Amino acid sequence: MKKAGIVGGIGPASTLDYYSGIIEGYRSKAGGDNYPEIVINSVNMNEMLSYVLNKDDDALIDMLVSAVEDLANAGADFAAIASNTPHIVFDEVQKRSKIPLISIVEETCRFAKSKGCVKAVVIGTRFTMSSGLYSEALSKYGIEAIIPPEEDQAAIHSIIFPNLENGIVDPEDKKRMLGIVKRLIEEHDADALILGCTELPLMIKDDDLDISVLNTTRIHIRSIIDSLLRQQ
Amino acid sequence: MKKAGIVGGIGPASTLDYYSGIIEGYRSKAGGDNYPEIVINSVNMNEMLSYVLNKDDDALIDMLVSAVEDLANAGADFAAIASNTPHIVFDEVQKRSKIPLISIVEETCRFAKSKGCVKAVVIGTRFTMSSGLYSEALSKYGIEAIIPPEEDQAAIHSIIFPNLENGIVDPEDKKRMLGIVKRLIEEHDADALILGCTELPLMIKDDDLDISVLNTTRIHIRSIIDSLLRQQ
Repeated sequence: MKKAGIVGGIGPASTLDYYSGIIEGYRSKAGGDNYPEIVINSVNMNEMLSYVLNKDDDALIDMLVSAVEDLANAGADFAAIASNTPHIVFDEVQKRSKIPLISIVEETCRFAKSKGCVKAVVIGTRFTMSSGLYSEALSKYGIEAIIPPEEDQAAIHSIIFPNLENGIVDPEDKKRMLGIVKRLIEEHDADALILGCTELPLMIKDDDLDISVLNTTRIHIRSIIDSLLRQQ
Repeated sequence: MKKAGIVGGIGPASTLDYYSGIIEGYRSKAGGDNYPEIVINSVNMNEMLSYVLNKDDDALIDMLVSAVEDLANAGADFAAIASNTPHIVFDEVQKRSKIPLISIVEETCRFAKSKGCVKAVVIGTRFTMSSGLYSEALSKYGIEAIIPPEEDQAAIHSIIFPNLENGIVDPEDKKRMLGIVKRLIEEHDADALILGCTELPLMIKDDDLDISVLNTTRIHIRSIIDSLLRQQ
């Protein structure tokens, strides 16, 4: 049986979603009483964020490479980083990793394409929104990314940190978030919203909007389960 | 910073409790914005249970030693097995492990002693109740263990498997469980109830009974946090 590796703790609330999502999804797909083997390496979120804030890509890459190496040493056959933000250095981490990595960005773009999306609003941390992470990846699939203007980015980021990152959903925050998102969708006639932060699904649900809500956590989890089943 | 290792997945519901409990407890004790480093090795519960059922202690020990070794290879400085049942072979696993292990049984007995308990009803899986696991350990601390008679053991075990082990609390099950427990406490004039299965706290709460309810998961988590803080 193959073992999945997860770099977790960024943040802990979404790591819980990954863990229970993989267990439940695997059990329902594999049938019977099968349990997947998963190793989770829960790192210090603040250390990671300090590198992102200081734009210290080298330290961020070193930290993630080391976290993935720990997973490989624990027997993981492949790994996933359970957070969108660190994917800004995904390619460099993959290059230095002994085991294959599943990118949340790549899997989300592929999923968006399969759903026929052509114009997607992307929300996430300021780092994810401003880095061009999703815009570049989506454009490869012929999908236009709508990145919120700076003022909206600041508001969205402040809703994610610190409350949402710690699993707290404030109803007032949700109202503000949906206000921004609905305005952007209307202005740009978008047909999809990408929840480009693994904590956003705690706040925004499928039925909050009339267009496709792409839950990057759920898409990532599904790919991890498929890899576990494919590699058996 | 030291890293805690957890052998998890037995069952997944209590692994979620361990993970969020360690994160929350550590953050409130360490202060500020500190996040602990934790590595969780979630193993195949059914493989473990098959060894327990078949009384194949050698295979059970091999599986746990290998799971702890994976954690050590992932950088864990010490480890804990997040389940009572496999503690029936704890000593043998500790002997063959490179890193120290924190025993849920030992920590619970120490805690019971510190609370002045003298007679404790022990419930858990059939394996935990019939193995003498808690009776022997408690007697070292001068505490008498009340182990349910066989008929009650069968009923308690059937409530834990499969529902509770999968995180499902059935109100009828809870009523039956509390009926058995209250009768045993009264019959033996016990002053404590040991929830000797990491899923039992999902069903039995502190205020369900008038005597001390010893939540082994919570006691174990507290010891893991103390070890993380002590070893910094």
